[in-house]
Amino acid sequence: MNFHGGNIYEYNEDILDFSSNINPFGVSKKLKDEIYKRMDEVARYPDINYKRLKDNVARYLSVRSDMVTVGNGAVDIIYRAVSSIPKDKVFIMAPAFSEYRKSAEMSGKEYFEISAFDFSKKDFDCDFFDRNIEDNSIIIVCNPNNPTGKAIEKERILKLLDSAKEKNSFVILDETFIEFTCDEDKYSMVSSCLYYDNLIVIRAVTKFFGIAGIRLGYGVCKNSDINFKIENNSKPWDVNTFAVICSDVVFWDNEYIEKTREWIDSERKFVYENISKIAGFEIYETNSNFFMIKTEVSSDIIQKKLLKHNILIRQPKGFTGLSNNFIRVAVKDRLSNEKLINALRSEFVG
Amino acid sequence: MNFHGGNIYEYNEDILDFSSNINPFGVSKKLKDEIYKRMDEVARYPDINYKRLKDNVARYLSVRSDMVTVGNGAVDIIYRAVSSIPKDKVFIMAPAFSEYRKSAEMSGKEYFEISAFDFSKKDFDCDFFDRNIEDNSIIIVCNPNNPTGKAIEKERILKLLDSAKEKNSFVILDETFIEFTCDEDKYSMVSSCLYYDNLIVIRAVTKFFGIAGIRLGYGVCKNSDINFKIENNSKPWDVNTFAVICSDVVFWDNEYIEKTREWIDSERKFVYENISKIAGFEIYETNSNFFMIKTEVSSDIIQKKLLKHNILIRQPKGFTGLSNNFIRVAVKDRLSNEKLINALRSEFVG
Repeated sequence: MNFHGGNIYEYNEDILDFSSNINPFGVSKKLKDEIYKRMDEVARYPDINYKRLKDNVARYLSVRSDMVTVGNGAVDIIYRAVSSIPKDKVFIMAPAFSEYRKSAEMSGKEYFEISAFDFSKKDFDCDFFDRNIEDNSIIIVCNPNNPTGKAIEKERILKLLDSAKEKNSFVILDETFIEFTCDEDKYSMVSSCLYYDNLIVIRAVTKFFGIAGIRLGYGVCKNSDINFKIENNSKPWDVNTFAVICSDVVFWDNEYIEKTREWIDSERKFVYENISKIAGFEIYETNSNFFMIKTEVSSDIIQKKLLKHNILIRQPKGFTGLSNNFIRVAVKDRLSNEKLINALRSEFVG
Repeated sequence: MNFHGGNIYEYNEDILDFSSNINPFGVSKKLKDEIYKRMDEVARYPDINYKRLKDNVARYLSVRSDMVTVGNGAVDIIYRAVSSIPKDKVFIMAPAFSEYRKSAEMSGKEYFEISAFDFSKKDFDCDFFDRNIEDNSIIIVCNPNNPTGKAIEKERILKLLDSAKEKNSFVILDETFIEFTCDEDKYSMVSSCLYYDNLIVIRAVTKFFGIAGIRLGYGVCKNSDINFKIENNSKPWDVNTFAVICSDVVFWDNEYIEKTREWIDSERKFVYENISKIAGFEIYETNSNFFMIKTEVSSDIIQKKLLKHNILIRQPKGFTGLSNNFIRVAVKDRLSNEKLINALRSEFVG
């Protein structure tokens, strides 16, 4: 059973998809032009060592190329990291993406999902999470977290990381949504990868750069033993040529990046303010491009009613620790956001 | 250590690459146009169930969609098949592609490469191969074979398959180069997949359709238990959206297919006739788009001399059972083929 957003293919492909958290600007003009111009390169195999791709990622993140591993989406790196790190237990900060536990299952590792979100404080209790982690473990944290949208400040992650070090444990940090915080200095641990050998930070171009279909994820890690294992725990040519080409363009597409920041800044306020006014919908603040909402009626009823408006939302299935009275909605363009807000109002108000 | 052709990235990217067996027509105009037209689809995740992609493959091969599995190149399906089929020993018909044994290694299975090519008869001895296969095994056969180029007729594969059935063994048949035979009725076992539950036929768009960088492979198998395991032994969204789009176009691009058949028919004769005349180079007949050549001098010397002509060939490294006095060269366009032949003549004749 697949528990994922974005599975519009089971519905009408023209459905308004709030279940998947992709940048609504989609594929940038610059990338489209680059791909069209360089389509002949696709005849050849990509470089089996992905040198240029790794150099591009390294330049984007100001790290060394030998710290970079690349894969078929963030999920590929997560699976390969979980199976490569020589620890048998996996502790997942929950609620979280179902692929973390699936990666543990596939590697035959025992996993524990620690529900560390304090719903009253609307924040993660990192100390509580830390107290529940055993020695010699793999720790998986998503920051900003999916599905809550909440980002944890660097200082708190550093504390977890130091504690993990003492426990001889390794931290996998999924920063897939980090660019949407618009404040990487405050939240991202990429620069700490230069100092900690028990940390891998994983990212992708999927969400922020609006190219989920291109399949490009990457990891940054100082520990060369782990990188070697992750590299060897793959099939040749895992990353396609279009993904390689995209790495030449998107990280430096400042127009697209700026436009996206302006959009997320304004639309996240707009959606928050409007949904907070709807009785029966408790919306949580977000640092990302989606909102978790606590609802009085069940998510099934909400989904059913919104489907009449051709709107798809993300139900909490697959997120451990979330009852059926939660939904997740993406932040989209103004017109779409208005449609969602209006549909919620018309179905649930008055 | 990677033993593969096509690694032009270690050389000059403009090198004349005879080491990789890709259709020299490259990416078809029709596919380029389709990709450009549908680039916006890449913003979304591909269908996690790949329904349309599987339907396309099924229609191309006249099999049922539920018999089709898809992956990130043929090599992805090979790895997943080897690890999914519940047998602990792998028998590989050699000489063969190094990824077969690597897939066995990665699954922790014991493997045996049976050198079954009779160099005097210039053909595979299938009975010899069969005699060496133990019960309860996975059998891997590449047809047409890489690196020899030799295709084995259906009747002989059927005999192997019946024998495998008696031995409670499972056959993985890699037909990556089958379209180049221009006689699938004589060689392909795809239609037998409807009757044998111990057979998976694996193919890709890589070689014949000139799109190695797009990463699309597929398997056809009647056995639903095995298909289920192969499907579950994957990460979500393994196949990118460009590969999905390509499946809407390439299998029915008759102009490209016809052009390719005419080219391979004429150029394979041209290369064979010309290289057979060069003393010290014994060229083997091929059913594919590359030739194995036995050489009096070592492949290192040949490679070194041809690099001066900006030509890259495939040395036998990684092919068990081939001495260093073999090389493999792709069939390319007439101008390139002439350059190879002239370079060989100028370096090794007179």
